[in-house]
Amino acid sequence: MERRRHEYDFQEEEWREAGISRGYSYTDYNVDGRNIERIEEPETVEKVFKNLEVPSWRKQITIRAMVTSIVLSFVFNFVICKLSLTTGVIPSFNVAAGLLGFAFVKAWVSLIEKFGLLKQPFTRQENTVIQTCVVAASGIAFNNGTSSYLLAMSPIVADQAERDIPNNVKSLSLGWIIGFLLTVSFVGLFLIVPLTEMMIIKYKLTYPTGTATAYLINSFHTPRGAKLAGQQVSALFKSFCFSFVFAFFQWFFRSGSDCGFSSFPTFGLQAYSHRFYFDFSSTYVGVGMICPYMVNVSLLLGSILSWGIMWPLIEKKAGIWYSADLPASSLHGIQGYRVFLAIAMMLGDGLYHVVYIMVKTLVNIIQQHSMKTKEATVINTQFSNQTLESMLENFDERRRKEFFLKDQIPSWVAIPGYICLAGLSIGVIPVIFPQLKPYHVLVAYLMAPILAFCNAYGSGLTDWSLASNYGKMAIMVFSAWVGLENGGVLAGLASCGVIMSIVSTASDLMQDFKTGYLTLASPRSMFFSQVFGTAIGCLFSPLIFWFFYKAYSVGDPTGSYPAPYGPMYRGMALLGVEGVASLPKNCLEFAIWFFVAAFLINLITHLFQRYETRYRIYRFIPSPMCIAIPFYLGGYFAIDMCIGSLILLFWSMKNKQMANDFGPAVASGLICGESLWGVPSAVLSLAGLKAPICMKFLSASTNNKIDAILSGL
Amino acid sequence: MERRRHEYDFQEEEWREAGISRGYSYTDYNVDGRNIERIEEPETVEKVFKNLEVPSWRKQITIRAMVTSIVLSFVFNFVICKLSLTTGVIPSFNVAAGLLGFAFVKAWVSLIEKFGLLKQPFTRQENTVIQTCVVAASGIAFNNGTSSYLLAMSPIVADQAERDIPNNVKSLSLGWIIGFLLTVSFVGLFLIVPLTEMMIIKYKLTYPTGTATAYLINSFHTPRGAKLAGQQVSALFKSFCFSFVFAFFQWFFRSGSDCGFSSFPTFGLQAYSHRFYFDFSSTYVGVGMICPYMVNVSLLLGSILSWGIMWPLIEKKAGIWYSADLPASSLHGIQGYRVFLAIAMMLGDGLYHVVYIMVKTLVNIIQQHSMKTKEATVINTQFSNQTLESMLENFDERRRKEFFLKDQIPSWVAIPGYICLAGLSIGVIPVIFPQLKPYHVLVAYLMAPILAFCNAYGSGLTDWSLASNYGKMAIMVFSAWVGLENGGVLAGLASCGVIMSIVSTASDLMQDFKTGYLTLASPRSMFFSQVFGTAIGCLFSPLIFWFFYKAYSVGDPTGSYPAPYGPMYRGMALLGVEGVASLPKNCLEFAIWFFVAAFLINLITHLFQRYETRYRIYRFIPSPMCIAIPFYLGGYFAIDMCIGSLILLFWSMKNKQMANDFGPAVASGLICGESLWGVPSAVLSLAGLKAPICMKFLSASTNNKIDAILSGL
Repeated sequence: MERRRHEYDFQEEEWREAGISRGYSYTDYNVDGRNIERIEEPETVEKVFKNLEVPSWRKQITIRAMVTSIVLSFVFNFVICKLSLTTGVIPSFNVAAGLLGFAFVKAWVSLIEKFGLLKQPFTRQENTVIQTCVVAASGIAFNNGTSSYLLAMSPIVADQAERDIPNNVKSLSLGWIIGFLLTVSFVGLFLIVPLTEMMIIKYKLTYPTGTATAYLINSFHTPRGAKLAGQQVSALFKSFCFSFVFAFFQWFFRSGSDCGFSSFPTFGLQAYSHRFYFDFSSTYVGVGMICPYMVNVSLLLGSILSWGIMWPLIEKKAGIWYSADLPASSLHGIQGYRVFLAIAMMLGDGLYHVVYIMVKTLVNIIQQHSMKTKEATVINTQFSNQTLESMLENFDERRRKEFFLKDQIPSWVAIPGYICLAGLSIGVIPVIFPQLKPYHVLVAYLMAPILAFCNAYGSGLTDWSLASNYGKMAIMVFSAWVGLENGGVLAGLASCGVIMSIVSTASDLMQDFKTGYLTLASPRSMFFSQVFGTAIGCLFSPLIFWFFYKAYSVGDPTGSYPAPYGPMYRGMALLGVEGVASLPKNCLEFAIWFFVAAFLINLITHLFQRYETRYRIYRFIPSPMCIAIPFYLGGYFAIDMCIGSLILLFWSMKNKQMANDFGPAVASGLICGESLWGVPSAVLSLAGLKAPICMKFLSASTNNKIDAILSGL
Repeated sequence: MERRRHEYDFQEEEWREAGISRGYSYTDYNVDGRNIERIEEPETVEKVFKNLEVPSWRKQITIRAMVTSIVLSFVFNFVICKLSLTTGVIPSFNVAAGLLGFAFVKAWVSLIEKFGLLKQPFTRQENTVIQTCVVAASGIAFNNGTSSYLLAMSPIVADQAERDIPNNVKSLSLGWIIGFLLTVSFVGLFLIVPLTEMMIIKYKLTYPTGTATAYLINSFHTPRGAKLAGQQVSALFKSFCFSFVFAFFQWFFRSGSDCGFSSFPTFGLQAYSHRFYFDFSSTYVGVGMICPYMVNVSLLLGSILSWGIMWPLIEKKAGIWYSADLPASSLHGIQGYRVFLAIAMMLGDGLYHVVYIMVKTLVNIIQQHSMKTKEATVINTQFSNQTLESMLENFDERRRKEFFLKDQIPSWVAIPGYICLAGLSIGVIPVIFPQLKPYHVLVAYLMAPILAFCNAYGSGLTDWSLASNYGKMAIMVFSAWVGLENGGVLAGLASCGVIMSIVSTASDLMQDFKTGYLTLASPRSMFFSQVFGTAIGCLFSPLIFWFFYKAYSVGDPTGSYPAPYGPMYRGMALLGVEGVASLPKNCLEFAIWFFVAAFLINLITHLFQRYETRYRIYRFIPSPMCIAIPFYLGGYFAIDMCIGSLILLFWSMKNKQMANDFGPAVASGLICGESLWGVPSAVLSLAGLKAPICMKFLSASTNNKIDAILSGL
């Protein structure tokens, strides 16, 4: 679930539906509110804005934009950190970021306009700069590994995995985490700059998320779009308040770890013990409202399959398949099945997508080349090249290209930049992780550009970012290479960080450049904004993680912050160094089946998608990645998310337009409200203040015993 | 809170607002949906129905109507019984009864019409017959005393009052309760028949509830009204299902008496100990949606005044004002203040209304007489009496009068009927209650016609039924007369039953006759329906009470069914036999203040209402009766009801028309859903099946102790 943004949308056409259902305001270019396929008449957009002056790239970066970016980056870093540590299921915040960025600056501009102090109007270029900065900073929160590869190094997770192997554990500390992030996060930036022209101008890749964000921003700056945005912000604010207050209310009833709404055995104590309950988390109800229906159904399916069927059956084999005396968190026991089967499915899913994207990228590039040459030979006979190009380009494209190319960052800045930063990394990383020798890092930085290109190209075609998949491959490769004795686990995890940073930056920022291209923002201001966003992300995200880490027992599988990807990533590294020998009995067989199943389900989905267009059955095939997530966690958040789906479904049935326009805003409010209650909540926890009441759920027989004892107290 | 139906509405104009806000469908006679004052153009109604044949009175009574009446009577008896035993706050069910009666028969008629078997179409007369029957049967549930004067005789309540006086306690048993009800309930029917012509034709009294019900029924039988009714029934059904399922869900978490949602310390444990919490009762949220805002605010005020301020202060005087060692339920301790201050306010309020109604009745009758004679003398000089009358009457009135007078029940049936039944009572009641001698009963039956006339006339003018006030007076008078040694407590309570039955019948059934008059239903079919309804009420209501009585500990002040009026009524009887000497210290002084305050608040309200028409301040003066109810119970149901008010308020702000049309239906569904969950719930309880889970609320420190103990278990 780490593929970012529109990670669940399976093709452009689907994405467009999803984009609409997420409240992107296409309405301005859309007369009857229905004909969604026909709205992208490219001329209209730039003609609408024709008379507005585009400010120079320096003027696109304003102090108000920077301040807004910092505030929003903090908020989204916090929210994403909390979500990563609870379930790792993170929806797209593009709409929320866009809306809030627009609303903040708009409010500020209106305010100072009243005092006659406004020097510069609020432009869509400035808006794009904010969006870019927030996306870059949030990207660090997604990929900083504090909930995955870095946490996997810590003694907490290592102890759970029950392998007290020296040289393979590293205590977390704020200093080296920030250092590591600063070292690896900027490299990718320089790597992609030379690719932008090719991807966006030459190959004209779609970048669905970037395009959707651009349409959103463009629409904000039309009167009708601004009005709708105002209403959406108001809806977001209301649901934010509700969610915040409800979380605050819940806090009072949670004086102990098994108290409160989050332990509510909604479907009975039996179901609760199998982790089927509704935990009253408005965050995940909101997440469920943003994620497509099929994602939520897949999660529910996965939890029924695992916690409803498989684990109870396997637990009956305790003492036969595995020792019955093991602690609950031991990877040699039932926990091993949970972790390794989830890993198997994720790897199967990941492998399929990597193969698919590589093939698709290759085919696409080859086709492009052959088409270009064909076209050129056909048409060259009649027109000059010059005429042809100007004929093929319409007003919008010409204008966009002009602004995009004007401020290009020259390659003589970008390529040496990459080399310098990579060199720095090669020097610094082995100091932080002595298990990783400089030549390992060098190899990583040689592999990285290829993977980054694939990822940038693939996400341009399909909106998928496969960064975490490449990261997982890196874990396996490097941990096996370095070996257990030399600290292969740590080496694998660290190299995962290096690869993921570069590869995810490549796709995320290319999406941003597409947004910039479509809003006439200058590549230079975008680049500056990305650097700035990356820098604040590298500072904020470890600090916020540290806040949680100190306030709560992060990584405790039964606590509020189980951080499921921690043990998963460590499990992968262990697989890399030790192979499959140490798995509990029958686990390997199961894992192979799940790996193959994940691969096949994806294949079948794509085949249906391609060859069965009548009923579009592929829409009803669950996603293997989503099935795998509840294996470790249980079904409670899947139930939250399905409730979110149900709410959206009923809303759509009652008033489709309202649900489309306000659903994503309301959902974002729900997510952010409860997540930001985390700030005061963690402060209270750090201050040692406990809630006054415990809402406890006891079986009737236990209750009778308790009552007998209480009357004696 | 025992005045029935539109008991909270302070004058006709107000009632009309309330009537509208309760969803009576005036809309059919109302073009723009706003001009409510102008809609009662009396010609229009009967002209609409001019071409429809009015069936003969025998044909108005059909088997389908009887069956529907029985089903609805059971439902409303059950709901009213449950509400009486929990708080005694009972809203008007006229809209719900009208809606459901119409929907049931309509559905049945549509069904058999499809098979071509329909012999007789569904007329509004038949609808009125159903309504009358349900009202008569529900009337028994209101006034059968199983939650007030009969319960007050039982040892449970007597033990709480801590006066173990022989001859003043009577164990409840189904046999004598049914016998008593059958004896006293039919008398009133025969008493009012001779009055109908006078009240309805001669004095043309308004009977707001009866009129509103008639308009409701008339509207159902127009196409537009039928469509709205269908939508309302659907809304009612939805909220019914929600409420039923939510109550079912709550059941699982209540394995013990202090478990579950009904013990949810919403505002903290401190507030909970003072009975301020939201107990998740959808019933009382619904009740709050039906009752006017001021009623709910008054209840909340009363609970803050009593449980928030007075009781905590008085409790500090434990050991000074009263012995600190008394059991919690002793009337000599804090409970005495609660009961007697509530009684004082209710008596003050009651006295004011009795005086007011008597004065108003007298003034009105005198005015009517003098006007008639004046008019007659003035006009007689020019026209003959005949011409005058036909001139003054319009089409509607002529038609209504014609149908009403055609089937009049002759006085030579009614008056001997009253005498015979009274004679029977005089013979039977002293057998059931040996404390009451035949001459006591005779006196009661001599007083009754006067009180009944007053009540019938008063409710015709103001919609208030003062039956319970007359009953309370009867308690004081008869218990003092009989004296403690001769069983004055029991005698007072029994005579209360005799008086209340007659007096409440007089007003309730006169409202029905008004409904019948306005829907052209025959007085004979109405009378038959009332007899039938009374009979099933006399059977159903004690049986349902018995069901609760056996399944739960009814009357336990800390339980789910505290039946607050039980101790109140016994308290009044004790006051009657013993005077004020035995009250705890300072209680008498407080009681006098509260009595006077109640009287004055009413007086001030009426003065404002009469002389201050600009801001209509009287609307913001709380009702003393409503303030008194939480004195005994605490604020939890007031909080439920205020939440109901808030929901309605927000709904009205969003969509006033929707809230007006559907608010009462949704509220009735909420009330009935949870109440009817009482059937399976009581069955489970009788079968000894307990809920599986206890949702318990512990303070953090208790929880730590419990956790320590649990880990050792």
